[in-house]
Amino acid sequence: MTTRVSPATAYTTPNNYVQDRTKWSGLIEAYRSFLPVSDQTPVVTLHEGNTPLIPAYSLSERVGRGVKVYVKYDGLNPTGSFKDRGMTMAISKAKEDGAKAVICASTGNTSAAASAYAVRAGLKAFVLIPDGYVALGKLAQALLYGAEVIAIDGNFDDCFNLVRDIAHKYPVTLVNSVNPYRLEGQKTAAFEVVDQLGDAPDWLCIPVGNAGNISAYWMGFCQYHQHQKCEKLPRMMGFQAVGSAPIVEGHPVKSPNTVATAIRIGNPANWKRALAVEDASQGEFNAVTDEEILEAYRILAREEGVFCEPASAASVAGLLKVKDQIPNNATVVCVLTGNGLKDPQSAIDHAQAQVKAGVASELESVAQVMGF
Amino acid sequence: MTTRVSPATAYTTPNNYVQDRTKWSGLIEAYRSFLPVSDQTPVVTLHEGNTPLIPAYSLSERVGRGVKVYVKYDGLNPTGSFKDRGMTMAISKAKEDGAKAVICASTGNTSAAASAYAVRAGLKAFVLIPDGYVALGKLAQALLYGAEVIAIDGNFDDCFNLVRDIAHKYPVTLVNSVNPYRLEGQKTAAFEVVDQLGDAPDWLCIPVGNAGNISAYWMGFCQYHQHQKCEKLPRMMGFQAVGSAPIVEGHPVKSPNTVATAIRIGNPANWKRALAVEDASQGEFNAVTDEEILEAYRILAREEGVFCEPASAASVAGLLKVKDQIPNNATVVCVLTGNGLKDPQSAIDHAQAQVKAGVASELESVAQVMGF
Repeated sequence: MTTRVSPATAYTTPNNYVQDRTKWSGLIEAYRSFLPVSDQTPVVTLHEGNTPLIPAYSLSERVGRGVKVYVKYDGLNPTGSFKDRGMTMAISKAKEDGAKAVICASTGNTSAAASAYAVRAGLKAFVLIPDGYVALGKLAQALLYGAEVIAIDGNFDDCFNLVRDIAHKYPVTLVNSVNPYRLEGQKTAAFEVVDQLGDAPDWLCIPVGNAGNISAYWMGFCQYHQHQKCEKLPRMMGFQAVGSAPIVEGHPVKSPNTVATAIRIGNPANWKRALAVEDASQGEFNAVTDEEILEAYRILAREEGVFCEPASAASVAGLLKVKDQIPNNATVVCVLTGNGLKDPQSAIDHAQAQVKAGVASELESVAQVMGF
Repeated sequence: MTTRVSPATAYTTPNNYVQDRTKWSGLIEAYRSFLPVSDQTPVVTLHEGNTPLIPAYSLSERVGRGVKVYVKYDGLNPTGSFKDRGMTMAISKAKEDGAKAVICASTGNTSAAASAYAVRAGLKAFVLIPDGYVALGKLAQALLYGAEVIAIDGNFDDCFNLVRDIAHKYPVTLVNSVNPYRLEGQKTAAFEVVDQLGDAPDWLCIPVGNAGNISAYWMGFCQYHQHQKCEKLPRMMGFQAVGSAPIVEGHPVKSPNTVATAIRIGNPANWKRALAVEDASQGEFNAVTDEEILEAYRILAREEGVFCEPASAASVAGLLKVKDQIPNNATVVCVLTGNGLKDPQSAIDHAQAQVKAGVASELESVAQVMGF
């Protein structure tokens, strides 16, 4: 068992002294002046954002040299992922523009967020998926929120082309990541990190799939910097999975493959933007193996008590991979994009712990198993 | 589709104007002066609490007569349920007292919370369950957090007796609901509701299993009232499932049975306390059927965009059952104790929506299915 930092030396989140409690009604209200909304915009919110920035004492010890690591736990958004940040904006603007329905192609976190915010707004939600896609669990949320899920006789590319054509021809708003309001909402995570720390961190470690979130965070840091809300700008450190690392390899990956399904993307929509972020922030893109991702996933749970999606753990796997590059005493934030409860099967498959069964129902037997 | 309240007339959470953003580092720091902690107490926190109080416009319309309904969405705590509130206190105090390990009997939310906070504190966590209990999904969290899960050849009562005996004989702290610090932590949910509304609500609707949470909320409201933090005290409205309603029926239920597993308890530990709360608050206990619970579960998802555990929906099922008793223009808070992601199978089983499969991958076919 890792030794824990004692309370006397433990650091906390600097600006989290509290007192003005729980005064939060969603990120649009919180950051209104930084967002493309007006008094005419109906605010469709589930009080997303305001997610914890948790000190990661064990990760800090693993890095050493006075480095302070935090995790931004965006899995505590209302539908369980950072997608809610973009969706409150996308759906509010769709509602403002008079839309009656929204559509997306997704089998994961986007479909859950789109469905929840759509019903909240009184809009119909359509979700397109490829036929034969069997992982019903991932669609459980969309179905319960009452989205209309349509499985087409084609692949994901066909789904994306269809939703774009449908949004073009019919009065349905597209809320996939091409929707420009998505990144506007997502950038507020950077605002929160600065508000929580009192400045930007030295490094931001983040999983990269479509590269939308790294672009959004950078937008947020730059905007806050322009408004003198922070003095620093972080180095943006993006991490892809080895089997799905087009940006690292410099070319699209035809059949991307990784346990980190939420970043299994072979041809990122925001590729150019991501390279611009790398350049402007003196950042880096690196690839981490599935084994490294799963090890980080377990470390987060077993040492920090934080349960995230496998894809989220790519940021921590990356941190541990390049830790020798981190300057002494630096502040590092690792972004955890989704809740581990989204994928209980991965927890069971990769826990490396098992139930000790068949123990007799008597004190001595149980005590013996416990090591007494 | 239900008509939504237009933005012009929509109410929001009164005290949620924002500004002091995200300044939260857990409920012990936030409510230190109201809790049995000192400067010597190591604070073991995952930044639990500070959960959203979300206006429920559709439920308000269903009740009518100017009644404002909110849901307190405690499923957004770090391990996905309100149990984190009690566990940050129980584990911090265990750590303060020098414990090296904690133990509980649980197959559900308690085991997840105990395991996460224990590893965070550097303590060993033991979880006792009855052998042959097959729902591995519910144990996924405990296993990933690295708890030692021991299945004994006995039933739940045997588990409870054993953990009590073990905690008595060995240096292991019991963190089941008999641990007195659990309710201390849980009462902070009432503080948050008052801080968010500016006063206590007129009614509080809450699911009742062991009756610990209703007792904790009442403690919180009363303590805040004594400190002039609120003018009102709410009527405490507790709801049990028909197949597991010992308090409503006035006698223990031998084999409790309900879809709301988190409140499937035949002989509540806090029974006497619950009756005292009913009396002092002029509250009521009522039973709701599984059908009513599942209907409320769907309404929350399909109309409010909020995904909770079936047991959580008992508070909303109860609200709708006794809605004619609610005074005009009253403010009502329904407590949602757990995240729907804890139980994806229930979502799939009860969504009443299905994937429309086998649609041709062409614009016209999809448009037709969509109703264009």
